[in-house]
Amino acid sequence: MVRPAQVFREKQDIDLRTGHRVESIDPANKSGKGATSEGKAFDFSYDKLLLATGSRANIPDVPGVGLPGVFALKSLEDGRRIKQHIAKTPVRKTVVVGMGYIALEMCEALRSRGIEVHMVKPGPIFIPWLNPELADAVRQEVEAHGIGLYPGHEIKRIEAEKEVMTVVCSDMELKGEMVLLGVGVSPCSELAAGAGLSLGPNHSVAVDRFMMTSDHDIYAAGDCADAYHGVTGKKTWIPLALRANRSGWAAADNVIGRKVALQGVVGTAVFKVFDMQIARTGLSVKEAQDFGFDSAETVIRSRSRAHAHPGASGIWAQVVGDKKTGRLLGAQMVGKEGVAHRINAAAVALHAKMSVEAFSQSDLAYAPPFGPTWDPLLTAANQVLKQL
Amino acid sequence: MVRPAQVFREKQDIDLRTGHRVESIDPANKSGKGATSEGKAFDFSYDKLLLATGSRANIPDVPGVGLPGVFALKSLEDGRRIKQHIAKTPVRKTVVVGMGYIALEMCEALRSRGIEVHMVKPGPIFIPWLNPELADAVRQEVEAHGIGLYPGHEIKRIEAEKEVMTVVCSDMELKGEMVLLGVGVSPCSELAAGAGLSLGPNHSVAVDRFMMTSDHDIYAAGDCADAYHGVTGKKTWIPLALRANRSGWAAADNVIGRKVALQGVVGTAVFKVFDMQIARTGLSVKEAQDFGFDSAETVIRSRSRAHAHPGASGIWAQVVGDKKTGRLLGAQMVGKEGVAHRINAAAVALHAKMSVEAFSQSDLAYAPPFGPTWDPLLTAANQVLKQL
Repeated sequence: MVRPAQVFREKQDIDLRTGHRVESIDPANKSGKGATSEGKAFDFSYDKLLLATGSRANIPDVPGVGLPGVFALKSLEDGRRIKQHIAKTPVRKTVVVGMGYIALEMCEALRSRGIEVHMVKPGPIFIPWLNPELADAVRQEVEAHGIGLYPGHEIKRIEAEKEVMTVVCSDMELKGEMVLLGVGVSPCSELAAGAGLSLGPNHSVAVDRFMMTSDHDIYAAGDCADAYHGVTGKKTWIPLALRANRSGWAAADNVIGRKVALQGVVGTAVFKVFDMQIARTGLSVKEAQDFGFDSAETVIRSRSRAHAHPGASGIWAQVVGDKKTGRLLGAQMVGKEGVAHRINAAAVALHAKMSVEAFSQSDLAYAPPFGPTWDPLLTAANQVLKQL
Repeated sequence: MVRPAQVFREKQDIDLRTGHRVESIDPANKSGKGATSEGKAFDFSYDKLLLATGSRANIPDVPGVGLPGVFALKSLEDGRRIKQHIAKTPVRKTVVVGMGYIALEMCEALRSRGIEVHMVKPGPIFIPWLNPELADAVRQEVEAHGIGLYPGHEIKRIEAEKEVMTVVCSDMELKGEMVLLGVGVSPCSELAAGAGLSLGPNHSVAVDRFMMTSDHDIYAAGDCADAYHGVTGKKTWIPLALRANRSGWAAADNVIGRKVALQGVVGTAVFKVFDMQIARTGLSVKEAQDFGFDSAETVIRSRSRAHAHPGASGIWAQVVGDKKTGRLLGAQMVGKEGVAHRINAAAVALHAKMSVEAFSQSDLAYAPPFGPTWDPLLTAANQVLKQL
């Protein structure tokens, strides 16, 4: 929900200073300074400081990214600017740089406006964190909607000639009236770094379970802050809405002295592209290997409804287990229905540090309109058990 | 999936004797006897015996339940007989006795054929195990489809005059060309009882975690057998498909000496009536009280999609926690989308004996098409936490 600044000032009596850029913090003196949008210097002092500086869209370091008609995809303002551009320029084709959640969600939005979409990125694999069989099902869905997918093409520059933009790669070119950059986000942690605070993965602001930074009077919450990963026990940076929101509540509690510890995340995420739902939780096989697990993986294909029930579509489910301990490490699913919320069962199992065997015995919901007797995650768990 | 008997004989080399009714078992001599459908006596001996006698539909003990035009709702054959009746008799109205899962599912099926439906039962509460606010949402959905609901009417008898059946209650009558009896099922445990085996709740066949009955050479699986409840630790009898199927696999393993222990159930169930999904797991408030828990309950109303996403509908979520230990005891949900699979998160949390607080910190999936940032179960858990 988007609330105007006035609501905070009037309803919550918060001294909300928009147009004030904080440029540095001095933890030793518990103060900071900056400049307003009119260039006027200001300073402030604090008892407790909360950094909620968020993240910003990554911009590829190539010529032409600043051209009109090239847009990043992060803020509400970005969305408005894109809509304005489409309203005033006849956009028939768009080149999307990147193939992550946001890039794929945008390509669906553009397609629904009748705009042709090509997606390009340097990496050779369509969705690298997704099991290849699952990624292939998503790719088929995306291509069935006429999206051109060009992974493995390094972007050299973006050029404009009148209204036509060209994304120039080392070995090909893609043209359109708009270029969207959807190549991930990075934490806005410069203030924290400048104040000498410890940083975490991806240069996020390192916080403990109470959202406290390395300075006892400075907290951080939202996309700028890191988190503990419930599977690895290590720090991670996964800037998603639920954690951002939850960490805000926890930081507020802790700032006023009401101790609230957060468990951390397990890497649950879901998105939709056209009719396909893609969900994950925990570690991919690659991540499991990187963290030193000796992992086993199974992919099964199941159905979204019981055998006798009409209207079923395919569900692909993947489960990753640890050969050494038998523990559940992660799960992924794709399919046209019943994927988005099903993944939550595995997410809770990860928080509980369940073994694959214990998870496979879960009493999950069954009725013919909603799935087969054995939930796809249970079938996948039963299969991976044979390798553990 | 329904497989003809021949498949078992030919593909799996099983000596499958249909038309053979076993009438008694003699555990001391590891033998049994019975009669074929042609009245011919037979006997058999065994090393290990598996009882998979299932359950049968309850039939109210009132005059007229045997009349043509009165049908129970349990087997595939029941379904075929109902279809035949509808094909040869113009059925404009049907009276359904009972308001459980099956009764409600049938009323949707009948309505889709344009048949008027009235539902009647002796108990005064529409869905007694469901939180009243949730039950009310379901009642509104059912009534919006023109179903007449008459809880609190004791059924005295069923009468027939030509093609019109009358369900006579103590204080009213309901008429139709068909009467369906959907008042639950009971385990077929007469053989087990006759053999002196221990019985469990509702006279089901008592089994241990290896599906072994009180006789070491007799196992039981499927709807006839009881189970441990993961929340109460006590025996329970909840005859649903996943447990029945899972217990069959486990019994087979154990019969051949491959030890497989089952954890038990947590009472997860889901069904659909018209556009409403109804899901539960764990204990209702009444059940929690019956098992001696000092429980707290919260109901929240949330939405099936994020605020800015079109097409959202309401989701009601209820969470039950134990005031003494803080443990999660149960959850219920109703709504038009995103309910059926969401309940699985709470089911896994029950298996893991999670506290409400730990569950409330779960990293569940979020994307705008699939729910609010805080999953309705998390919002309900956050609320019930305030009472624990």
